[in-house]
Amino acid sequence: MAFRASGKPKNRGGRLSREEFFAKAKKKVKAAISSRDNLLVQSVSAVDELNKASNLLFERLTEWYGMHFPEFRASEPKKYVEGVLVLDRKKPDEQALTSVFGPQAQPIMEKMRSSVGAELSDEDLEQLRALARQIKSLWELRDSIESYEAKIAKEVCPNMAHIAGPELAAKLVAQAGGLQRMATFPASTIQVLGAEKALFKHLKSGSRPPKHGLIFQHPLVGKSPKKIRGKIARALAAKLAIACKADALSHNFIADRLKERFEEQARRIMEQQKRVG
Amino acid sequence: MAFRASGKPKNRGGRLSREEFFAKAKKKVKAAISSRDNLLVQSVSAVDELNKASNLLFERLTEWYGMHFPEFRASEPKKYVEGVLVLDRKKPDEQALTSVFGPQAQPIMEKMRSSVGAELSDEDLEQLRALARQIKSLWELRDSIESYEAKIAKEVCPNMAHIAGPELAAKLVAQAGGLQRMATFPASTIQVLGAEKALFKHLKSGSRPPKHGLIFQHPLVGKSPKKIRGKIARALAAKLAIACKADALSHNFIADRLKERFEEQARRIMEQQKRVG
Repeated sequence: MAFRASGKPKNRGGRLSREEFFAKAKKKVKAAISSRDNLLVQSVSAVDELNKASNLLFERLTEWYGMHFPEFRASEPKKYVEGVLVLDRKKPDEQALTSVFGPQAQPIMEKMRSSVGAELSDEDLEQLRALARQIKSLWELRDSIESYEAKIAKEVCPNMAHIAGPELAAKLVAQAGGLQRMATFPASTIQVLGAEKALFKHLKSGSRPPKHGLIFQHPLVGKSPKKIRGKIARALAAKLAIACKADALSHNFIADRLKERFEEQARRIMEQQKRVG
Repeated sequence: MAFRASGKPKNRGGRLSREEFFAKAKKKVKAAISSRDNLLVQSVSAVDELNKASNLLFERLTEWYGMHFPEFRASEPKKYVEGVLVLDRKKPDEQALTSVFGPQAQPIMEKMRSSVGAELSDEDLEQLRALARQIKSLWELRDSIESYEAKIAKEVCPNMAHIAGPELAAKLVAQAGGLQRMATFPASTIQVLGAEKALFKHLKSGSRPPKHGLIFQHPLVGKSPKKIRGKIARALAAKLAIACKADALSHNFIADRLKERFEEQARRIMEQQKRVG
């Protein structure tokens, strides 16, 4: 075959020219990138990483602020950060404290008076407050991406989102690496998605296999008695495998019936357990 | 000895009562917490962690935004984040682009037109922009804590800060775990502070010992020819060991002379190298 130095590309008996090939490849790449379950994968990972980042900085905040007021304890990280923002050992603002800590404000005031912590200048404290504000805004961003993620999940995999809740559905799709890929998984794989470490340990060393991966987060699995968790997880995974195929391939909404049947199964398993135990 | 059920604590021949002991212990704890080199340790670690957190999120941003505009490249992370904030494939704003990228704006405009990336809705893009803004504010906080750290270093260890620069002095004190502790270190330890991994590998397996740790960041060490770096590092570490003792113990400012002598030594080592090489 001779090379053509110039001229329009010619279709030779169904074979494509170089330009046509490029156009086709570009189209395929675009379609692959555009599928919206990619957004799910990205936002689930982003939420994970925002959690990691804020934990890292929160630990630093507690250690750093501990120099100034080591006796300060809070019931939860959010309260601690709020505390760093309103507490001022030089001129304690009881009203602001009460608005954050309620009845806990009084003991904190007392601890402040007798604290062994270092006295810090306003500039020193400003650094700490800036760090606290940063942590707060990381949390806010995480919450906002989390609700966005739930919205996309309802759009991309409505069946799974209906059965397992949008957050869990999003995590499952992200863990599987996409919706199309997940649709090829058997129920037994979906059951242990996210428990890969335990699964491969089982396969290598013969330890007990995991009973559930991410789907442990479903309340009917995680909050059931330990003995029947595996059974309920198996039932849920079976329904999710069907739902996933509907989401990825037929795009019908069949989750109402699936959810009903799963809840019925779970009920039956629990009753059986009660009769036996 | 009988216990006294009540009454004022009594000093029995120089021995202290329980209350007096508590007061004394509290005072000592307070003094230990209050020493300002602790602030240095905390802020150096905070800068480290802010870097880690922003890197983590920046990687996520590039991957996520890559769905939308995979052809987009920037010369540095800062430009990339700015790009995410101003780029809009639906209605490209050439003026805003030019203000960020200068002459690079034109090629970016062209790439935008032929991009294979997925089209995202405004809501999708808003998540990305929020992430980009978050990364920017993490960088700003890091810069602000870094300049605070330099200020504290000049206050806590003026001699070392004068010789090695405040940033490096701060990192050395943080790595040593405090100024008082660092004052007990010989020069050879200061020379390899921060290269613990290589040092212990050397001690265990007999590989070549590290020539410099953190002090590699000093321009006269890091930017010298490889052959004489070790010698210059040794000279710098010797001067820092003296400066550290002055900072921690005598509180005299002797760094002018030390710095002069170090620079003279470095000059001599370089000349020697030129004669030989």
